[in-house]
Amino acid sequence: MTIERVAIIGLGLLGGSIGLAVQKHLPGVATAGYDADPDVRARARERGLTAVVADRPVEAVEKADLVILCVPVGAMGEAARAIAPALGEDTIVSDVGSSKESTYSALSEALPHHHVIPAHPVAGTEESGPDAGFASLFHRRWCIVTPPEGADPAKVAALVTFWEDLGALVETMDAGHHDRVLAVTSHIPHLIAYTIVGTASDLEQVTRSEVIKFSAGGFRDFTRIAASDPTMWRDVFLNNREAVLEMLDRFLTDLALMREAIRAEDGETMFDWFTRTRAIRRGIVAIGQDDARPDFGRKDHD
Amino acid sequence: MTIERVAIIGLGLLGGSIGLAVQKHLPGVATAGYDADPDVRARARERGLTAVVADRPVEAVEKADLVILCVPVGAMGEAARAIAPALGEDTIVSDVGSSKESTYSALSEALPHHHVIPAHPVAGTEESGPDAGFASLFHRRWCIVTPPEGADPAKVAALVTFWEDLGALVETMDAGHHDRVLAVTSHIPHLIAYTIVGTASDLEQVTRSEVIKFSAGGFRDFTRIAASDPTMWRDVFLNNREAVLEMLDRFLTDLALMREAIRAEDGETMFDWFTRTRAIRRGIVAIGQDDARPDFGRKDHD
Repeated sequence: MTIERVAIIGLGLLGGSIGLAVQKHLPGVATAGYDADPDVRARARERGLTAVVADRPVEAVEKADLVILCVPVGAMGEAARAIAPALGEDTIVSDVGSSKESTYSALSEALPHHHVIPAHPVAGTEESGPDAGFASLFHRRWCIVTPPEGADPAKVAALVTFWEDLGALVETMDAGHHDRVLAVTSHIPHLIAYTIVGTASDLEQVTRSEVIKFSAGGFRDFTRIAASDPTMWRDVFLNNREAVLEMLDRFLTDLALMREAIRAEDGETMFDWFTRTRAIRRGIVAIGQDDARPDFGRKDHD
Repeated sequence: MTIERVAIIGLGLLGGSIGLAVQKHLPGVATAGYDADPDVRARARERGLTAVVADRPVEAVEKADLVILCVPVGAMGEAARAIAPALGEDTIVSDVGSSKESTYSALSEALPHHHVIPAHPVAGTEESGPDAGFASLFHRRWCIVTPPEGADPAKVAALVTFWEDLGALVETMDAGHHDRVLAVTSHIPHLIAYTIVGTASDLEQVTRSEVIKFSAGGFRDFTRIAASDPTMWRDVFLNNREAVLEMLDRFLTDLALMREAIRAEDGETMFDWFTRTRAIRRGIVAIGQDDARPDFGRKDHD
């Protein structure tokens, strides 16, 4: 199976980046896009996020071999129902959502007779909207494909190749496992970051202006994550609820241990814990999943 | 009062950066350094972190107008006692520690007849040791000076000017307030990062290799902070225990609220919280305390 025509529903950071990446890496593949927001469609046309930006979802997906839904996970079902009438029977329907069990339920319920193969490129920035996307977003980032039982192997292979062509590394796993992995590597970090930034902005003893001024001690890293799209993240927590609660409780157990070590002035427990965590950082840098330079190599002053 | 000779005790990330910054911005000022580790001294000589690297602490501080202790906060008292015999009566003794009440106690106890004026440059990277320092570390970062009651105003002014000359912005406040501010903007973020990275590396359902591979979803940001120096951070938590526990409990209260919102599928509470936190990020970027580019402008692939 060859993918000759891709349709992208939702032209924010992820959808826009896919459109730009296809045009760069797969120039022979036609691209069409749609977004429910007319202002986003207008901006998408200006930036050329897809070759065609349609005014109706059914127009965008017509004759597409691959449709990728790039909407918040809570909006997947509705987006799928909107394109259903125009989908070909061989079309692959995929997505980029951060929770895969719920996404598969929503898509397969809306499109019971179509080829739904969910996927999740583990890539992004704190920005959102039609101005945020760029063609290299997926370069050397992992994309996790979660083929449901009974998925057509040729279609799974085509989707895998598609992501590899955009520069991604691909791994397949089942949706439930994906949801646990991402709860740890993405959802809990976001929840924690959102929470501490909220805590810090509401203190009586420390002003908001002090929090902002003296943020270089570590806090500012959390604020970047906590600037991510609120709708997307609300939907992630609502849709990966069980895995998030499970992993959150593991974190809370460990945090209670650390709290007790501080209370009891148990320096040894702290030192051992803090030493162990360095190894994980080295692993991430070693396989090219983060910048090796100190402070991410950022230059925050000129 | 003019500072003509600076001594730096401890030649790691902070001490080394001060040495390099003085040589760059204040070429007329003499620099001498000492580190308890002979390997660090050898490397400090190779890099020229200070013009002179002495083999004994008393040699380094002789005739210094300003001595800056750049050792973990738990080692301040010992470091101060080691230099006491050679300190002039007009010498300013300062430091760079992350907790200021405990540092002042340790220093003033060891040096009851000297001019102790603690300070804390809110700057750093996840690296440590004599290879980690660089001259621009303090450029446009805040340095908080915490003059004790009765401090000589001329000496406080000289220390403020010294830090400004290295490119820093200076604010003075009392030590207790500093400790609360930094608990929020630095200590709790580090504690959380250390904890979640430890949690993630110990799960049965998700392998360590998966955590490393799929870290780009947010987790990798935490691993950078959790790669910081374990001795330094153990000492911070032991020495700013009360403020850390107070702020940690505020965070835990808020995290329980977020947990309940997820459990109860209360999307509105989450959405409101996640929207509010974006403003803090904008404030930090607006005053130049972080890189405005997405993902800190990092390039983690070539």
